[in-house]
Amino acid sequence: MEAEPKVEPPSDQWADKAWTMLTTVRRQSPLIQCITNFVSMDLMANTLLSAGASPAMLHTLEEIPHFTPNVHALCLNVGTLSADWLPSMKAAANFASNSSKPWVLDPVAAGASGFRLNACLELIQLKPTVIRGNGSEILALSKASVQPTKGVDSSHESTDAIEAAKSLAQATGAIVAVSGAIDIVTDGKRVIGAHNGVAMMQKITATGCSVTALIAAFVAVDPSNAFEATALALSVFGVAGEMGMRLAKGPASLRMHLIDSLYGLDEATLISHVKITTFCD
Amino acid sequence: MEAEPKVEPPSDQWADKAWTMLTTVRRQSPLIQCITNFVSMDLMANTLLSAGASPAMLHTLEEIPHFTPNVHALCLNVGTLSADWLPSMKAAANFASNSSKPWVLDPVAAGASGFRLNACLELIQLKPTVIRGNGSEILALSKASVQPTKGVDSSHESTDAIEAAKSLAQATGAIVAVSGAIDIVTDGKRVIGAHNGVAMMQKITATGCSVTALIAAFVAVDPSNAFEATALALSVFGVAGEMGMRLAKGPASLRMHLIDSLYGLDEATLISHVKITTFCD
Amino acid sequence: MEAEPKVEPPSDQWADKAWTMLTTVRRQSPLIQCITNFVSMDLMANTLLSAGASPAMLHTLEEIPHFTPNVHALCLNVGTLSADWLPSMKAAANFASNSSKPWVLDPVAAGASGFRLNACLELIQLKPTVIRGNGSEILALSKASVQPTKGVDSSHESTDAIEAAKSLAQATGAIVAVSGAIDIVTDGKRVIGAHNGVAMMQKITATGCSVTALIAAFVAVDPSNAFEATALALSVFGVAGEMGMRLAKGPASLRMHLIDSLYGLDEATLISHVKITTFCD
Repeated sequence: MEAEPKVEPPSDQWADKAWTMLTTVRRQSPLIQCITNFVSMDLMANTLLSAGASPAMLHTLEEIPHFTPNVHALCLNVGTLSADWLPSMKAAANFASNSSKPWVLDPVAAGASGFRLNACLELIQLKPTVIRGNGSEILALSKASVQPTKGVDSSHESTDAIEAAKSLAQATGAIVAVSGAIDIVTDGKRVIGAHNGVAMMQKITATGCSVTALIAAFVAVDPSNAFEATALALSVFGVAGEMGMRLAKGPASLRMHLIDSLYGLDEATLISHVKITTFCD
Repeated sequence: MEAEPKVEPPSDQWADKAWTMLTTVRRQSPLIQCITNFVSMDLMANTLLSAGASPAMLHTLEEIPHFTPNVHALCLNVGTLSADWLPSMKAAANFASNSSKPWVLDPVAAGASGFRLNACLELIQLKPTVIRGNGSEILALSKASVQPTKGVDSSHESTDAIEAAKSLAQATGAIVAVSGAIDIVTDGKRVIGAHNGVAMMQKITATGCSVTALIAAFVAVDPSNAFEATALALSVFGVAGEMGMRLAKGPASLRMHLIDSLYGLDEATLISHVKITTFCD
Repeated sequence: MEAEPKVEPPSDQWADKAWTMLTTVRRQSPLIQCITNFVSMDLMANTLLSAGASPAMLHTLEEIPHFTPNVHALCLNVGTLSADWLPSMKAAANFASNSSKPWVLDPVAAGASGFRLNACLELIQLKPTVIRGNGSEILALSKASVQPTKGVDSSHESTDAIEAAKSLAQATGAIVAVSGAIDIVTDGKRVIGAHNGVAMMQKITATGCSVTALIAAFVAVDPSNAFEATALALSVFGVAGEMGMRLAKGPASLRMHLIDSLYGLDEATLISHVKITTFCD
């Protein structure tokens, strides 16, 4: 099967939704608990702050029963997972689910080892609202198998993983997002693509982790529309990257300008740059 | 009771002390051990380096008996506390106290869970020289009770917590600082306010953690004047933020320019911007 | 014994090798596993990405048997070592050695405690390809003794540690590099110096850690010439620092411009700035 993007005229509907969503996050400042890898904590917290959300990087099992039921969304990321962190992730996922709070899973390098794959599969059984990974990660999860891997970087285009993403969404009930040159989002039936962002964002560590946290913030303020919120978060982060790229001289200055741009994004800029299209197969 | 800032003419005395203190840190380069949360480690170490201090981010229980007695001050921060880190923090606090080295506590989100509150209260029994938190954290500690919380962000103005800060200072013997639009410092009797800094600093993760480490560096070079050193550190960091803000386009560039400014602060700039006033009630 | 740099005319040979090495890293994008301290993870990953390599910050014992044999090089750093991370480091070193992959050790603050020194000495027995430290660290390792220490900063010039470096190289079979105003590299017989970099790089946390990871990337693409690859990595990182310094206004902007410069380094710039000389004694 070949997935072909159905090119559409600029979708005012998506663009308007993007602005509404971003202003809602800025106004409500949802509290997002992140249990994430050590590498990403700084950029993830700053991404959430710059978008108007409130990050809480708490991971301790002892305080999850008290804290997690009060957050607006949860973001789990297995990037530097060790066995002693997994119970916290599971407990937090359970408390989020049991208090009807959305939670998002970032299955970093899911196919890199049996340990990591099994951890991701166990977490998926706890019913994430959204799963966001790169092509290789989504393929590994969909096949539930360890894959030849290039570490945390993807060996696959996002568009290579559309069928895997749909299968994974159908099997789990989660929205599945696949990052890449085009970010793919599916609920198992519908498939849309967010066409924002710049290639150099892959040369900054933790941009993928950070957009997953942004998805959590967007889903937090509109949990009944997780499919759309996921696509919008990917698009908004991508637009911030495009704006940042105008000033960047390399990956480190892009990182700075991306965060500045996310903080300062105005309506006209956002609306004129959001590009989300429907995929048909 | 209403706390009213007694507006004073620009205090040359405070400004001169600020410059003296900063140059002393630059000259002596005190060794500051930080046992802190994962999110803050990078910015905290860079804050200390840019101020002229020497950071040591060592947290292992096994080496604390050998290492901590040789540091000039200790900074403890419970931001990502887990049960396995608490013994290290307690041991380090004990070694610092027993070797008459100042130590500073940052009770991040103290009221967010019973686990966290109890950990902070146990640490406070080990006699910190300074406690620096936001309004919500100081209120939680003063009441020794878990509070409705917005994660790590404060739900209270610093000036709402003056009485709580005074009570905490009286009960513990520590200098207590409350960060906010005005940074409050009290020894339980005297109350002063540092009026520097910019609002956008709250949109950068770990700025609060980092100024706590700077307090440790300032107290390290003048341990007999911890009350003044604390206010001066808050003011100097705030001035660096004000200077950084002149060049910033958002939180990420502010973060960069703040550190650059702290590194480059000269006498004329510092003296003309330090603003510390006495509060009376 | 006095070490005197033999001043040579600009060495086209070294400069050409530097460009060849950097372009090889960019083309092959070697997968570098880093088990490193929390403070350095962000800058280290971004350094590897900006040089064209692919970082993998995986540290869990459970997945090392599966993952480590597939990496191109391994970087171990004991900066925030705790007892529970040491088995992972040892296992990874063993898997790297057993699959003939190069691995590099950064013995941060090796002399700061018996715990830390013993850990480093145990790791050294697992045959690192390269050991890179500052003068104080190499002296501590060479003497196998705890030293009066200034935390993670060196109390010694790199040139004070040349004999210690040679002894350590002879005793271990590793290439030994000593960072400083001049970076020293020895295989136990030959001694060369890389004269690039700027002093302000010491005011940025984790630059030393990051250049160790870059050494791993360079050695990964030319494992049979680890001596030269080590010197070239130190020189290339230093040139990026020199280029970054032209735009920097302090340590934080230097950090950004350094990474941007490493990403964008072109042939003419690199060749005209690489400065590696032979030391004779």
